This record gives sequence, C-alpha cells and structure tokens, in this order.
Amino acid sequence: MKVISLAEAEKKAVAMEGARNVWKQVPLGGGDGSPLFSFRVFTIEPHGHTPYHVHPFEHLNYVIEGNGALVMESGQEKNIHKGDFVLVLPHEKHRYRNTSDSEPLVMICAVPKEFE
Amino acid sequence: MKVISLAEAEKKAVAMEGARNVWKQVPLGGGDGSPLFSFRVFTIEPHGHTPYHVHPFEHLNYVIEGNGALVMESGQEKNIHKGDFVLVLPHEKHRYRNTSDSEPLVMICAVPKEFE
Repeated sequence: MKVISLAEAEKKAVAMEGARNVWKQVPLGGGDGSPLFSFRVFTIEPHGHTPYHVHPFEHLNYVIEGNGALVMESGQEKNIHKGDFVLVLPHEKHRYRNTSDSEPLVMICAVPKEFE
Repeated sequence: MKVISLAEAEKKAVAMEGARNVWKQVPLGGGDGSPLFSFRVFTIEPHGHTPYHVHPFEHLNYVIEGNGALVMESGQEKNIHKGDFVLVLPHEKHRYRNTSDSEPLVMICAVPKEFE
C-alpha cells in the first residue's frame, strides 16, 4: 500500500511538442507495482495546453482545481471545471487547455501504465 | 468523450456486508465505453467504513475531501486526507474508514471495469 500527497510527487515540465506550460507528476504508477493503471497529474498553467493529439488508449480524468476546456476534433470545446470527471476514448483527438488567466488547471489523467 | 460532475452521477447506498454509511457513484465506467478502467466515487459518512476485505484487483484512490484511515491487515492504520493518492495492490486486505465526527470522506476508487 502506498499513500502519497501530490506535493511529494516529483514534478517535471512536459517537453512534448505541442505542449505549453504543462507540468507532470506520477503519484501512482508502474514503479509502485500498480498492475494495470497509473494516476498521472497534469498542472496546466494559465495560457497553457497539452498537445492536440490522438492515441490508442483512453484517458480518465478528474479535475482537482481550475477551469479549462477539452478541445475536440470538430474544433468544438467542452468546458471542464473543478470536480468534473472526463472520459476520452481511444482514438479521440483532443487537447486540454486552461481557460483561466490566473489559476492553474490541475487534473488527474489515468492511463494504462505502459503509457504513463 | 464524456464530461460529468459528481452531482450528476447516480448515488446508491452500498449494501455489501461490512459496509457502514457508504454511498457509491460511478461517474466513468464500462457503460460509457471505457475500455479498461472505471472511476467510482465512495462517500463514507462520519462513523462509516467500507468492508474489511481482500480481492484480486487493485485500487487507485484520490481523496477528494475529508479525513480517514486506511486499515491494513496488521491492524495498523495509515491516515489519509484530502489530496492524498492511495494504491492498494491486489490481495492486500484493507478497509477505508472515516475518522471525522462531522465531515464525509469522499474518494475516487478506480478499478478494472469488470469489478466496478
């Protein structure tokens, strides 16, 4: 068993092309012996966003704090707020972006551990 | 893609033997097409607890609010608080209990969808 606060998890800048002002932590993952899934946390600073991309695995999200938008392939956006749960299915093109000028968007992004 | 707030997810009392004052919601799960994992949310009222049990799959938790304890097979307890992440591996006997007299303990409990 493992109990860890977010502040204790190492925080790294995301260098992936298309990412802007994004930080990543992995409080629970393969390195802890998790058999299948990992809990990553992304902190997206104001004016930041994740890459606009697609992949063969799902995302299960929980928004810990902040306000943002989920950008879909159609260009449409769905607003996301603190307390929301989000499911992005495999092969659905998407981007998360922060819509606040002052507050970070912090969210859990659970994925199969092979993709953590 | 799905975006849902916790308030929108159906809430049911947990009738399992050994559970006390526990409510369950499944904001993201197999019914939404999630390929592998489900996000359940348990609300444990003051003086409540989940069953003291063991199972062949893991739990990945995030504590949304409240204060509680993770009871391990040794009888020892680990305190858990709002903002903590918890990993319970397969076959680790455990129980979650609320340690507050007044506030609910609310937490995500992610499991393979077959066990949601």
